[in-house]
Amino acid sequence: MPIPIRLSVLLLTAALSATTHAQTTAPAATQPTLLPSLKPDPTPAPNAGEWHKASTTHRQATFPQTTDDGRYWFQLSAPNAKSVQVGIGNRRYAYEKDASGTWNAFIPYQGPGVKYVTVYVDGVPMPEPGTDIFYSNGWKAALESPAPGEDYYATKDVPHGDVREHWFKSTVTGTYRRMFIYTPPGYDDTTIRYPVLYLQHGAGEMEQEWTHSGLANFILDNLLAEKKAVPMIVVMNNGFANRPGEPPAGARGPGGARGPANPSQVTAFEEMLIKDVIPDIDSHFRTLADRDHRAMAGLSMGGGQTFNIGLRHLDTFSYLGMFSAPLGNINTLPEPLNDAAAFNQRVHAFWFSAGTTGSDLTIHNNARAFVDKATQAGIHATFFESPDTQHEWQTWRRSLHAFVPLLFKQ
Amino acid sequence: MPIPIRLSVLLLTAALSATTHAQTTAPAATQPTLLPSLKPDPTPAPNAGEWHKASTTHRQATFPQTTDDGRYWFQLSAPNAKSVQVGIGNRRYAYEKDASGTWNAFIPYQGPGVKYVTVYVDGVPMPEPGTDIFYSNGWKAALESPAPGEDYYATKDVPHGDVREHWFKSTVTGTYRRMFIYTPPGYDDTTIRYPVLYLQHGAGEMEQEWTHSGLANFILDNLLAEKKAVPMIVVMNNGFANRPGEPPAGARGPGGARGPANPSQVTAFEEMLIKDVIPDIDSHFRTLADRDHRAMAGLSMGGGQTFNIGLRHLDTFSYLGMFSAPLGNINTLPEPLNDAAAFNQRVHAFWFSAGTTGSDLTIHNNARAFVDKATQAGIHATFFESPDTQHEWQTWRRSLHAFVPLLFKQ
Repeated sequence: MPIPIRLSVLLLTAALSATTHAQTTAPAATQPTLLPSLKPDPTPAPNAGEWHKASTTHRQATFPQTTDDGRYWFQLSAPNAKSVQVGIGNRRYAYEKDASGTWNAFIPYQGPGVKYVTVYVDGVPMPEPGTDIFYSNGWKAALESPAPGEDYYATKDVPHGDVREHWFKSTVTGTYRRMFIYTPPGYDDTTIRYPVLYLQHGAGEMEQEWTHSGLANFILDNLLAEKKAVPMIVVMNNGFANRPGEPPAGARGPGGARGPANPSQVTAFEEMLIKDVIPDIDSHFRTLADRDHRAMAGLSMGGGQTFNIGLRHLDTFSYLGMFSAPLGNINTLPEPLNDAAAFNQRVHAFWFSAGTTGSDLTIHNNARAFVDKATQAGIHATFFESPDTQHEWQTWRRSLHAFVPLLFKQ
Repeated sequence: MPIPIRLSVLLLTAALSATTHAQTTAPAATQPTLLPSLKPDPTPAPNAGEWHKASTTHRQATFPQTTDDGRYWFQLSAPNAKSVQVGIGNRRYAYEKDASGTWNAFIPYQGPGVKYVTVYVDGVPMPEPGTDIFYSNGWKAALESPAPGEDYYATKDVPHGDVREHWFKSTVTGTYRRMFIYTPPGYDDTTIRYPVLYLQHGAGEMEQEWTHSGLANFILDNLLAEKKAVPMIVVMNNGFANRPGEPPAGARGPGGARGPANPSQVTAFEEMLIKDVIPDIDSHFRTLADRDHRAMAGLSMGGGQTFNIGLRHLDTFSYLGMFSAPLGNINTLPEPLNDAAAFNQRVHAFWFSAGTTGSDLTIHNNARAFVDKATQAGIHATFFESPDTQHEWQTWRRSLHAFVPLLFKQ
């Protein structure tokens, strides 16, 4: 019961444009709010009093400094610059220049989780130079902002699984590709076979970001230590694929616009996942290689891929997680949902999530409407809300943390 | 027969200052040579004719573009900037501004391997924004420049090992730490036990750079496919450690100066390696856990660590590789070398390497002198030259490629 290709393309296109809007910092068309730096009086000394290096300030940098309540102090030497600003989300803060040509900015708490920080020197954007780098529509500096009450992604004193960089040859793309695979603590000490979650990133990211930005491995380690989840393998693959000689997927066109994925790119990823990735994982890892022990989930574009590919391959997957997946307005339910009793028996989790605010609001409302419509048709579907977060990593960390305990318990 | 702590500190201090000089791009004290852009006439179109995206140009960027013979074309939009330059090694090239406020630079071939590219916008340095990011004294954009005749680190159609991100708790530092572990192709399909190479980075890098910048996993894959090396595990750890409450190792002081490692930091790393890392590896991986099946090697500071720790722990290691290790002038041979016959029986490889030019020249001459002195004393020591390369990744890739085939064949 395949979903027509056209719907897949529409959904993926919607995913691509939604994330283009949401994940780039301050698109040129939108005028960001320029806020003053909140300079304390007197200016503190680095590493004195309440100020210390941030966890994301790299080994050789002294700045950014932070406080336990999540204020940040940025510093840049730029004696010849006329203006220096730091952009976080859709806000910008002005630095102030001191007599030595050093610029300082003090900013208030920005909310929980990953915050991209771009410095504008006379209008030219650059990653904040003291901060660790992640991939989000290009290489971006990103702070880890404190999240009171949320420690489920911390590096705790519990057993830790490995994350493997694993190279495989795709028969669909004709290239060697990299994927990352989480194996649970103790994997090497047993002969047990494990269920597998296939976990996809969004249109702005790459295969490493579910562990790098999302800290997915620590979320799993902690859930396992608390016995809230069953041990599983997690496979994190690059969500873009193109056939030999065809244009690369996920690139940007002239002027920086990200065009819609073409139909061949959409089916190339699907074919690669089914024909190359899953067999490679089942041959190299001790998996339980049947639909009852296979889940798929993803964020944003990856949620759209999960929705499309999952529903089209219910012989392969039995748990589906759509995190901030831009579904658009779906007027008629996809075909597999027409027989609710059969669907509910086959699909052990049909799970949607979104943040309640800002750049996730439209996605939230559309997903909510879809879940309501499916529920009215007798489908067992779940909708999870991440309070006060947008189309951002904190929404997806919370989603993974809430979704994983549901898996493989049937 | 331990080497006195004082010598260790001297060697590590020498390693730190040598790499400070060599690996930072254009230190402020040195005036870089400013060269004109080699603008072709007429300006080519992107992705037309001989121009195409570089392998290190990220998915969403259109520039840098490159040619098969290794010329590069950089582009930056900076309508308000007065000057834009790109710095590579100790050279800088001027961009030219066109009528639309877009700046272009065309540069000639820069020699083989990893080349860090920093863009200076009115004097403020930033990583070249279209290029992938690596850690080398901070986050740096780095090109992969073609190396005619050298394909031993390419991603070939051969079986590939995994690279695992593995977290362990150090009793010495009191923290969880990340290391990377290469397991050879087929590791999961056998019950064979493997020898282990402990491979350390330099003072400018972190634990991921031996695979990320150095492509160590592909070098091993290719050597194994050609049957030039025996299958082995490679452990890549962070070379900096400090005890609880002591200052972090590998940081920079005020003004950006990198101070010498203090004696406690030097012994903290050594203690951690012997007491925490090796037992963790021997308990989590199928190793051959004896000195005849254990090697240590490292680049720059990591070579100094190999020299010091290796000679102090000949009960633990039997192969030692010092790549571009700043040994300084050693007037008397370290104590284990006093009995040449005993040393030669115990140490199966005592191997030194360096580039022949530029920032590796002093290191080269000192290592050469040390090897000559040891040889005169009857020690079996080897010196490997990397022609026309400096204190840079191409020297260390070549060193690894030459060293690994010697291992574990006794």
